[in-house]
Amino acid sequence: MAGGADHDGETLARAAWSRLAEPGDTTAGALVSVLGAQDALAWVRAALARTTGTGGGGGLTGDAPGVRRSVDELSERVGRLEGASRRRLVTALGRWAPRLEHTDPRRELAVLARLGGVLLHPGSASWPTRLDDLGPAAPPCLWVRGTTALDSALARSVALVGARAATAYGTHVTADLAAGVSARGFTVVSGGAYGIDAAAHRATIAVGGDTLVFLAGGVDRPYPAGNADLLGRVVDAGGALVSEVPPGSVPSKSRFLQRNRLIAAASAATVVVEAAWRSGALNTAGHAGTLLRPVGAVPGPVTSMASAGCHRLLRDGAAVCVTDAAEVAELAGAAGTDLAPERTVARSDVDGLDAVARRVLDALPVVRPAPPESVARAAGLSQGETLAALGPLELDGLAERQGAGWRRRRAAPRT
Amino acid sequence: MAGGADHDGETLARAAWSRLAEPGDTTAGALVSVLGAQDALAWVRAALARTTGTGGGGGLTGDAPGVRRSVDELSERVGRLEGASRRRLVTALGRWAPRLEHTDPRRELAVLARLGGVLLHPGSASWPTRLDDLGPAAPPCLWVRGTTALDSALARSVALVGARAATAYGTHVTADLAAGVSARGFTVVSGGAYGIDAAAHRATIAVGGDTLVFLAGGVDRPYPAGNADLLGRVVDAGGALVSEVPPGSVPSKSRFLQRNRLIAAASAATVVVEAAWRSGALNTAGHAGTLLRPVGAVPGPVTSMASAGCHRLLRDGAAVCVTDAAEVAELAGAAGTDLAPERTVARSDVDGLDAVARRVLDALPVVRPAPPESVARAAGLSQGETLAALGPLELDGLAERQGAGWRRRRAAPRT
Repeated sequence: MAGGADHDGETLARAAWSRLAEPGDTTAGALVSVLGAQDALAWVRAALARTTGTGGGGGLTGDAPGVRRSVDELSERVGRLEGASRRRLVTALGRWAPRLEHTDPRRELAVLARLGGVLLHPGSASWPTRLDDLGPAAPPCLWVRGTTALDSALARSVALVGARAATAYGTHVTADLAAGVSARGFTVVSGGAYGIDAAAHRATIAVGGDTLVFLAGGVDRPYPAGNADLLGRVVDAGGALVSEVPPGSVPSKSRFLQRNRLIAAASAATVVVEAAWRSGALNTAGHAGTLLRPVGAVPGPVTSMASAGCHRLLRDGAAVCVTDAAEVAELAGAAGTDLAPERTVARSDVDGLDAVARRVLDALPVVRPAPPESVARAAGLSQGETLAALGPLELDGLAERQGAGWRRRRAAPRT
Repeated sequence: MAGGADHDGETLARAAWSRLAEPGDTTAGALVSVLGAQDALAWVRAALARTTGTGGGGGLTGDAPGVRRSVDELSERVGRLEGASRRRLVTALGRWAPRLEHTDPRRELAVLARLGGVLLHPGSASWPTRLDDLGPAAPPCLWVRGTTALDSALARSVALVGARAATAYGTHVTADLAAGVSARGFTVVSGGAYGIDAAAHRATIAVGGDTLVFLAGGVDRPYPAGNADLLGRVVDAGGALVSEVPPGSVPSKSRFLQRNRLIAAASAATVVVEAAWRSGALNTAGHAGTLLRPVGAVPGPVTSMASAGCHRLLRDGAAVCVTDAAEVAELAGAAGTDLAPERTVARSDVDGLDAVARRVLDALPVVRPAPPESVARAAGLSQGETLAALGPLELDGLAERQGAGWRRRRAAPRT
């Protein structure tokens, strides 16, 4: 089908690979990386053609002479393949074989085009290069509905993920964080699920921010169906639905877990807002940690099981505690430029005092003035230290002299 | 007054030091450590006697010939004292001087005895030796009302501290933690304040546990007055009120801060349950950290200002996230013996399956049976892998064969 080095051939081959191999198939990734998507596909076709008649490749073994010959040829071409590599390759051929005859990238690209979508691959200008950190587990391509400017959208981005069974607290905090980081120019990434994911997308759209949804199934079938409206609005609002599997693909458990690696890899940081002790969001956090992306966790009541996973991350040192949008921005932002502001609290009158002055102030009677000797005794200070402190305290309006005695005075309002 | 090396003299001298020097006076601590409490006191008396007439020691300076002579003698006795040490000593003499004539340890010990209390010092059998880690900032003695078996009570102990302005959430969690660690044989240490402290003491008494209160003022004046009943019940329940300042001493801001170092040093670990962004409980946590004692912080809603200090500790990596009594016990307990149990969650039917079996199960149709080739294609596996997985899934009651096809089956209840 493909052939040559023309762009269309590359697109077709990568689209075919996304149907042929399950997400995260590192053998496919390695083969594509070594031979290129088109040559790798041609090699697979040739290897399997040699086995036709022995059960369509379904019962493929490394002992089949055709397979052995193909692997030998590959070994010569790319350098010696050792035993383990050979075995992995033969096993993978067995996985790819049942799908090969059903693979029709032209049809799937036509479906995508009808939806107004575009296929991106590593040769595309707007390919999100962060995904390359996944190495052989990187997806061969992305099926995208909505904006295709993924690389620039993800440059400044944060994944907000969490439990489907979110609490009112969790969705409230998610909406706050999404709005806050949007205002700071971050794209909000999530998985389109119920609960935290939906709250993140919804709040981002509401404030006019950018949001991307990574789906576990095809972009032609928004999942879950109950979020179809929301996912449609993501596209309308200038965001995108993104998937590594072709249109028509159903989301499955393993695809959800693999989809999580894309969220983690594509975003500058991942923040878990609410998660049960066992939760897909922890899987996303785990991927982010493996990729050395910053991970944040939002704490919550210890009485809430919906926060148990976040506390687990904090306890294990696998996440930084984040409590507001500024802290999330610091986590996901450029080093040194997105620092959360130091918290300010209302300054009290005594904030500027040194330790000795505080002790003198503390020892001053409130009603009946006392001589400096008795103030010194009460403060546990020498008379010299006490007298030296009383002057400035008087100037600050915190102490007043009456005859030979001193007493405390409420500070005058600062002007 | 004192003199000789008899025990009574040591008690009197240490009682005097606790009046003379403010809590945490490291110059006093160093002098007592070098000379012993009694000789140190005698040296101070002698030095100040030489200055009598020049203002009762109040305006003491290192230029006064009497002071210079005393410091020279001390320098000869303990080894050369350098400039900074000399200056610190002269300054300290100036602080101690105003209090010397008012110091009457016999009277204060009599007040303590009338309350049924006892003075403990480092020579006492039940002196809590953890306090020695404070070095020169260690208290010269402890004024104790209630049980005197402090060392054994503190061997297995945890400080539960926090905001006076606690929320219902905070007091609830505190009560849970206090009851839980009491059940595990820990003594609960706190400061007797409103809010978290009171909740900790109260819950411990309620479950028959041991609790100690470290007060910032004298043990004759329970503070705050509103907790007087509770503090009385601590003593009645076999606990104790403990202070490093003599009866009659008022609590002051600096004494509260110094009292916090005793809580941190005396306890095996410190846990902050609720604390505002600026809070005395963070001061206690800071002391514990400096002493390399484990510090825990209980997370709470990010929308609650009463948890902001806890989140600050977590964010700074200054505390471990603790969410229940088992995790507090692990923090404060003996390494390896108080480990929090691994959390268990309800096992689902598919928990024991490997990744391939899960993918096959996931790919099985629910209603109309499909042939293994089509299951393999859906799962992205080879036919061999698929067939190898179907057998065990059938045995587990998760898959069923119908003619040449397979479909999913709800697992039978385990027997």
